[in-house]
Amino acid sequence: MQEQIDRMTRNTLGEALGMKLVKIEKGYVEGTMPVDERTRQPYGLLHGGASAALAETLGSVGSHYLVSEQGKAAVGIEINTNHLKGKREGIVTGKAFIKHQGGRIHVWNIDIVDEQDQLIATARLTVMIISQ
Amino acid sequence: MQEQIDRMTRNTLGEALGMKLVKIEKGYVEGTMPVDERTRQPYGLLHGGASAALAETLGSVGSHYLVSEQGKAAVGIEINTNHLKGKREGIVTGKAFIKHQGGRIHVWNIDIVDEQDQLIATARLTVMIISQ
Amino acid sequence: MQEQIDRMTRNTLGEALGMKLVKIEKGYVEGTMPVDERTRQPYGLLHGGASAALAETLGSVGSHYLVSEQGKAAVGIEINTNHLKGKREGIVTGKAFIKHQGGRIHVWNIDIVDEQDQLIATARLTVMIISQ
Amino acid sequence: MQEQIDRMTRNTLGEALGMKLVKIEKGYVEGTMPVDERTRQPYGLLHGGASAALAETLGSVGSHYLVSEQGKAAVGIEINTNHLKGKREGIVTGKAFIKHQGGRIHVWNIDIVDEQDQLIATARLTVMIISQ
Repeated sequence: MQEQIDRMTRNTLGEALGMKLVKIEKGYVEGTMPVDERTRQPYGLLHGGASAALAETLGSVGSHYLVSEQGKAAVGIEINTNHLKGKREGIVTGKAFIKHQGGRIHVWNIDIVDEQDQLIATARLTVMIISQ
Repeated sequence: MQEQIDRMTRNTLGEALGMKLVKIEKGYVEGTMPVDERTRQPYGLLHGGASAALAETLGSVGSHYLVSEQGKAAVGIEINTNHLKGKREGIVTGKAFIKHQGGRIHVWNIDIVDEQDQLIATARLTVMIISQ
Repeated sequence: MQEQIDRMTRNTLGEALGMKLVKIEKGYVEGTMPVDERTRQPYGLLHGGASAALAETLGSVGSHYLVSEQGKAAVGIEINTNHLKGKREGIVTGKAFIKHQGGRIHVWNIDIVDEQDQLIATARLTVMIISQ
Repeated sequence: MQEQIDRMTRNTLGEALGMKLVKIEKGYVEGTMPVDERTRQPYGLLHGGASAALAETLGSVGSHYLVSEQGKAAVGIEINTNHLKGKREGIVTGKAFIKHQGGRIHVWNIDIVDEQDQLIATARLTVMIISQ
């Protein structure tokens, strides 16, 4: 599993931003991302776009995990994110929970928290499931 | 101006993803981002999170540019993005237009297009303006 | 055409809130809604939910108009709306422009303006196109 | 309390669509809405705009309840909603949970469910808190 994860994230945005997948279950995906020079905005805070990218990564991986064995593909179509709290260093953890698993559409809620489990951002991702 | 832009983007997510700001006017900001190993997802396509990050960067820079001289700060609070078309290589250009410039809230529409000006993604960013 | 519109809106939320469709073209739909006791929130202002409902109505009608002759159906899957300006009375006009017309997904931008064409709200609707 | 609720919803969109507030606690608000000729779209299903309107109503009431005693006002600035399941009749129940209660911003997650507690729609509302 870890090998498959490593292969999937090689040479991707996830790698460029230091993301690490730490858990993949049916309907739940967890991953981390550092707050450092790769993920900050000019004021030294975690960039909102990094939060959105982590959220999109986790939900997409989760939908792929649910449908790829059926020969289907998961295509992210909409993501929205609220930025709730600034963070200057350390690590954030993203936790993606599937909210709706339909035949055509998956919806994920993703919370991004700091080391004290305080909410940094919250997101919702809509994924379309298509036959390949 | 270019110097100020370079300084602002040094050691940030924008630099990590290869973003370049190419135009900053009152109410309009334009920037580019490569589609390469820094911005792709595992299937080799532009990562939706990269589009969201470019959109958030452009709108945030635009609001900062509008209010920083008044001693105010721009805080991104919500961003939403539709992913419309895949892209495997080359460069995307993000074009952020201010949609609403209120005293407390700015709203930006951001279109991300390819080299033929075809729409890759479209986003809306809500920024809160606060006294520092 | 007007007859078809009247039939479509009879006994619907659109009728309950006083919406009127005034123009339907390929990729553009326009409609009005009164600001009165049917569409206000408790403070006497236009309810944000009324704006969202008008936006969803216009984009849905627009997608239906584009695909129904091909035996396909339009299903709204996500809508997001920014509320920008309060309004106490009179009429608002919603203008829905198609932003992306794909085989599987339509995306609409909808602006809601007052009598002076000032922006009251702006929305984006994602519609999935399915075979019936 | 019931009296205050009744007074707040009189001559509003909530009344026009048959909404009823059934529980208001700090950080939680619950309300119902019928699926009938007031809330359907032309195909006889619950209108997505009605779901958005119920979600916005519940979160707005919840923020008002949290800050009005401090002389502050709650202004809805952004709402987004995923429509997940059709419904032709009966009643839906909306359940709004506060996700983030900051000094300037509240964020609510709102689930809309049917009589069997199946998810019909899910929404997120961003509220700005201002001094009156």
